[in-house]
Amino acid sequence: MEILIKQDLLIANEEKAKDIRARLKQHNICMLNLIGSPGAGKTSLLEKTFSTLGQRCRMAVIEGDVETDEDAKRLAQYPVLIAMVNTHGACHLESVSVEKALNAFDLKKLDLIFVENIGNLVCPAEFDVGENLKIAVLSVCEGDDKVIKYPLLFREASIVVLHKIDLLPYLNFNRARFYADLKKVNPKAKVLEVSCTTEEGVDAWCKMILSFTKINVISIS
Amino acid sequence: MEILIKQDLLIANEEKAKDIRARLKQHNICMLNLIGSPGAGKTSLLEKTFSTLGQRCRMAVIEGDVETDEDAKRLAQYPVLIAMVNTHGACHLESVSVEKALNAFDLKKLDLIFVENIGNLVCPAEFDVGENLKIAVLSVCEGDDKVIKYPLLFREASIVVLHKIDLLPYLNFNRARFYADLKKVNPKAKVLEVSCTTEEGVDAWCKMILSFTKINVISIS
Repeated sequence: MEILIKQDLLIANEEKAKDIRARLKQHNICMLNLIGSPGAGKTSLLEKTFSTLGQRCRMAVIEGDVETDEDAKRLAQYPVLIAMVNTHGACHLESVSVEKALNAFDLKKLDLIFVENIGNLVCPAEFDVGENLKIAVLSVCEGDDKVIKYPLLFREASIVVLHKIDLLPYLNFNRARFYADLKKVNPKAKVLEVSCTTEEGVDAWCKMILSFTKINVISIS
Repeated sequence: MEILIKQDLLIANEEKAKDIRARLKQHNICMLNLIGSPGAGKTSLLEKTFSTLGQRCRMAVIEGDVETDEDAKRLAQYPVLIAMVNTHGACHLESVSVEKALNAFDLKKLDLIFVENIGNLVCPAEFDVGENLKIAVLSVCEGDDKVIKYPLLFREASIVVLHKIDLLPYLNFNRARFYADLKKVNPKAKVLEVSCTTEEGVDAWCKMILSFTKINVISIS
């Protein structure tokens, strides 16, 4: 019975996710679902994105958190619209709460929406929230075995950010193993190596993000 | 309805957990539930524990993993009994699977059992698996805001291992903030700062672990 109820929930979740995707398409908005462990650096990556691209395209973020607004407060200083979703203990976002958050925005005035999912490598990967792409964020501090240990996310993600690479000299992280595992699990995934501390890879990341806003990019002088 | 079913599940889980605790008490076994994010270093900490204490007390570990046996393979070289639990996608262990794993052991021959929970800061804290203590493992790489952002685990944990402290010089981790937050959330929690790389704090950790095996400690020559 428990399994049947879960299937029903997943089906209902997926139907709403499809509606969201259709709605965003009407507005030429791309939505990116950022998923990674607690401390993988999802919020830091968004800070870099908003400080670099904030004047060049119209962005919003749906901030998922278990119970605080810590991340939303960090992002409040950037030129970006923010909608908070507190899951009150739940370990992932679902399409129903993302839909409610979207209602807080004027979609006519947006090019790009980020979803910062709950810090968790397991469940968020199971729940389509209407995004166009899932982006996995993995900090090198977490170890080189995570692709094999948590394969669903890495199978679902179109892009993998290998994050905090400035710390590689101090860690026993086997890059070759990471790439070999990812090739097995998802040969099509694009990998970006990024450090928000040294800014290595931030340009490539921002360039890629801009490429998702097919039109509507506002050129600055 | 979804909430009611969850409550039923939690109640059933707790009843079985009580049974487990009673059964372990009969055998003077202490069971410790290790909870932390993916890559917090739970398995590394167990490796150090088993290599240091393997000849001094009789230990077993219940290895929770989403779908692989990667961690169990790492631990197989140590003098410790291992029972694997694959959750097939689920993000936490429950008492029913821990009970099954316990049946694999001859409890008369054990002093201490570790449960290495699924790498996740959210749900494992909700599920009593019959342990005597919950131990939170937090890597400094995850950031100093995690106590506030994921308070349930830190409220439930009797011991917090602040892990990978050898990396502190390369990070922007505010120790004072971590301690202040923990004092608010759980003033009784005991903190151990540990690095498995430099071995700092490993002795204190092992000493504490030994203190949990009230009797049955086998002295070595």
